[in-house]
Amino acid sequence: MLDKDELQFIESKLEFWEKLTETEKELAHQNMAKVSYPKGFNLHSSESECLGVLLVKTGELRAYILSEEGKEVTLYRLMPGEFCLFSASCVINSITFDVHVDAEVDTDAYLLNIGAFSKLCKQNIYVENSTYKKMLERFSDVMWSMEQILFLSFDKRLAIFLLDEIAKSNCLEINLTQDQIAKYVGSAREVVSRMLKVFQTDGILEQSRGTIKIINKNKLKELVR
Amino acid sequence: MLDKDELQFIESKLEFWEKLTETEKELAHQNMAKVSYPKGFNLHSSESECLGVLLVKTGELRAYILSEEGKEVTLYRLMPGEFCLFSASCVINSITFDVHVDAEVDTDAYLLNIGAFSKLCKQNIYVENSTYKKMLERFSDVMWSMEQILFLSFDKRLAIFLLDEIAKSNCLEINLTQDQIAKYVGSAREVVSRMLKVFQTDGILEQSRGTIKIINKNKLKELVR
Repeated sequence: MLDKDELQFIESKLEFWEKLTETEKELAHQNMAKVSYPKGFNLHSSESECLGVLLVKTGELRAYILSEEGKEVTLYRLMPGEFCLFSASCVINSITFDVHVDAEVDTDAYLLNIGAFSKLCKQNIYVENSTYKKMLERFSDVMWSMEQILFLSFDKRLAIFLLDEIAKSNCLEINLTQDQIAKYVGSAREVVSRMLKVFQTDGILEQSRGTIKIINKNKLKELVR
Repeated sequence: MLDKDELQFIESKLEFWEKLTETEKELAHQNMAKVSYPKGFNLHSSESECLGVLLVKTGELRAYILSEEGKEVTLYRLMPGEFCLFSASCVINSITFDVHVDAEVDTDAYLLNIGAFSKLCKQNIYVENSTYKKMLERFSDVMWSMEQILFLSFDKRLAIFLLDEIAKSNCLEINLTQDQIAKYVGSAREVVSRMLKVFQTDGILEQSRGTIKIINKNKLKELVR
């Protein structure tokens, strides 16, 4: 069973919490657990069973689509405090496509298991409603990624990605491999490698063993304009 | 005011109808109208005002995204009996991306205007809920289009498109220009033109003034496998 602080944290994130009856709250409490996934773990795929709703505590999850040939396109990344609903997509009949979810780093999360979630969804329209709403926010994220991939030249996409990363961490160093970056921006490692070299030659960044250091942020910003 | 048959048709398509109060039904009735759009008319864009919910009566609408350079990628097409919700997206806060909607042919539709729809959405959770649900179905359509564009070779994509078209019309003739096909499959006219020539040489189809006639359906199906 989770402790009081943990329950409070989870409840504060669930928009529908105040709309639950006492019995429903009880059901939810009894079906919440802490789960841990090691870096690289695939916690949801088309073959896996439906887990339930995950709330990221620490770490990071990544949702992506996968072609038959193994090409990955990242849809979005989930940070602490965010919900993963694709791991409960068996409950949402209107979602008919396959998404994979991996732990990008060692990740701790809270899980509301699928049985309880499914029951709450069926029983309480506010649960169903807030689930749909959260999924639609992801729809917007996905459209953003797609527009980038379909419409932007690669130098712009990579520049936007690097600027996002340094803004998120508030630090000019980015600790990601070229392979990771390729997955995040929906490209191939070779293409990322080539463009990073161009950026390096232009005096925008420096590369050294798995680390990229931005040395001219303004020049990077100019690329995006 | 719409006649009894028309109202009955609309109500049968609205999942939430039976959940409305008499006053809400009255409000809906008073705010429904018949609208007609000529072929090529842009009825929704990032600049246009929010119209409301459209139910296609006859004709066809197309939803697409548009790059700054004017490149279009079709998200999906709406046939008679289907709803267009992007024209009411100002009510749905979780949708933060811009979609354009055009009439592909002369199109008649029923419109529930945005004022009444917005009021019903706020007032009645079942209206909100069924709106989210319908939007999520579109999310699945969009993911399908995206996977095609990102993952499939172009010959497969075009073959799938042509097979879909003849299945939909139950007729081996397709009356679409190369330009239209290019928009539907998210490609350029030149690319479509080239691939249609290849298909023609392979004895799969024949082309003549704006019409494509499939003469070897099995060969087309083999391409998809």
